[in-house]
Amino acid sequence: MQQLRKDPVTGRWVIISTDRARRPDDFLRARVLAKSNGHCPFCSGHEDQTPPEILSYRDDANQWNLRVVPNKFPALRVEGMLDRSGEGLYDRMTGVGAHEVIIESPDHKLSLAELPEQRVADLFWAFRDRSLDLKRDSRLRYILLFKNHGEAAGASIEHSHSQLIALPVIPVQVQEEIEGSRRYYGFKERCVFCDIVRQEAADGSRVILETDEILVISPYAPRFPFETWILPRSHSSHFETAEASLIQNLAWAVRATIRKIERVLEQPSYNFLIHTSPIQEGPLVHYHWHLEIIPRLTRVAGFEWGAGFYINPTPPEEAAQFLRDAGV
Amino acid sequence: MQQLRKDPVTGRWVIISTDRARRPDDFLRARVLAKSNGHCPFCSGHEDQTPPEILSYRDDANQWNLRVVPNKFPALRVEGMLDRSGEGLYDRMTGVGAHEVIIESPDHKLSLAELPEQRVADLFWAFRDRSLDLKRDSRLRYILLFKNHGEAAGASIEHSHSQLIALPVIPVQVQEEIEGSRRYYGFKERCVFCDIVRQEAADGSRVILETDEILVISPYAPRFPFETWILPRSHSSHFETAEASLIQNLAWAVRATIRKIERVLEQPSYNFLIHTSPIQEGPLVHYHWHLEIIPRLTRVAGFEWGAGFYINPTPPEEAAQFLRDAGV
Repeated sequence: MQQLRKDPVTGRWVIISTDRARRPDDFLRARVLAKSNGHCPFCSGHEDQTPPEILSYRDDANQWNLRVVPNKFPALRVEGMLDRSGEGLYDRMTGVGAHEVIIESPDHKLSLAELPEQRVADLFWAFRDRSLDLKRDSRLRYILLFKNHGEAAGASIEHSHSQLIALPVIPVQVQEEIEGSRRYYGFKERCVFCDIVRQEAADGSRVILETDEILVISPYAPRFPFETWILPRSHSSHFETAEASLIQNLAWAVRATIRKIERVLEQPSYNFLIHTSPIQEGPLVHYHWHLEIIPRLTRVAGFEWGAGFYINPTPPEEAAQFLRDAGV
Repeated sequence: MQQLRKDPVTGRWVIISTDRARRPDDFLRARVLAKSNGHCPFCSGHEDQTPPEILSYRDDANQWNLRVVPNKFPALRVEGMLDRSGEGLYDRMTGVGAHEVIIESPDHKLSLAELPEQRVADLFWAFRDRSLDLKRDSRLRYILLFKNHGEAAGASIEHSHSQLIALPVIPVQVQEEIEGSRRYYGFKERCVFCDIVRQEAADGSRVILETDEILVISPYAPRFPFETWILPRSHSSHFETAEASLIQNLAWAVRATIRKIERVLEQPSYNFLIHTSPIQEGPLVHYHWHLEIIPRLTRVAGFEWGAGFYINPTPPEEAAQFLRDAGV
């Protein structure tokens, strides 16, 4: 059984896998692990090699375009009681949650940015549908929606997919964003993200692209070179409340942005992650969901890890200009 | 000139290098960059190839054992005014600070753990001496002391060295630890780290090694496999107040711990970082300096980056046992 443990100093929760513990040898082997041996469980025709399907979107001929399945090696499991306990000064709980994989296409060869716009929209519909379903489980407090593309970004399977992790706790970095935006609201009575959208759209120097409903920018203080944020122009705290036109705008913007990143940086590995509000909370006036894309270009050095303090060698104004000028 | 910029949501400061901006091509080139071409500016005899020495420790024959020099490509510079300004809703300041390199030995071939114990003690003496000197500059608020060992940990020069970055701001992760420990103190009237030392020493299952003055443990909720903390047993908020016997204990413990890590994990890349209190603050009852070692074994995946939420496949009790059992 997995366990959630809390760091007593910072309050950060960590998942500790106690049932399939990795020993020193496992890390050494992982270093030389080859790519998949040509056989892919996510490909069309291999549906029996994943755990049973949770959701699929199908065409008129009943061929699936997108499938959601449980992760075969889940970080957390839906089964079991949410059991909280102490261990001296420490706190822990059982690893209850969900870990699902969204297979974005039956075709092994196509990356997300190579899929038609409608397939990218399907990915966000699937995120939305799964969020609305998991939200009904009152043990769960937060849903992480993310994609690891390429080996350097942590992808272990080549076939294009995204993931969803539903947690009984709120991740510390999201918590900080929510608290920071609450402080800003307390001071200004405005959402900080709405202010960012307004200022960036007016200024233009960090804008990569825009649609009626979406703004794509290099943020003012990015941790990483070419870090990119995709924000809805209108205030909205919860991703799962997005309506059809916003999802369509988002799909277009994400696809176009990734194509630009792939052109400018020559197909880098990248991660994206949706930052949204805790699922059991009502609408928040101060928090505004958004999507962050991080191309994995540089190794992160020791003090960056340990201090949460980053050195970024590329000013966001220059990154934005490269991406703005790149074709789609 | 480098610039410090603040993320308006989380309050995290980032250094943006505006004077030697890296363009997309630079990242592509960096991927295939070879190792040093055999010529090392840190070796004995090449002293003229570093910026002028700030500090050195020498033997009776006037040969240096350790040198501190400014970083040739500093993230921050001591020269210039600390100029704070706004840019609409954003905040920035000029990149005033210091970035120094501690060359740990004149010998290119020896790693830190291969040096005699006294040389490791010298490293901590140098950290202490430089901290006490930089503390007199009232513009500076925090000093990061860290080491990147191996390519995967971000080391760009093979010759064994550590680094020091002095900042006019407090890194967000340190700030969180300080605030978390203040909350704990408010609740319990005890330092959380003192409580950790007491509980871990009594429990023993996560202890790697101990001396009269130092405890080395796998923390209860580690983000990374084989993450290791080295704590003074007695309460002390500021590293730079460490006295001779504590530094000697620390040197022995760090050297022994790294040797164990290198044996168990077959010479991995690693980072270490000292977490200490802001230099302009007086002694804090609630914060306790310590050193964190992170072997770089796994790739960090997207959601870990973006959410500050980690999955660790090795329980700390097992990591501690492997390290405890390993010879030095």
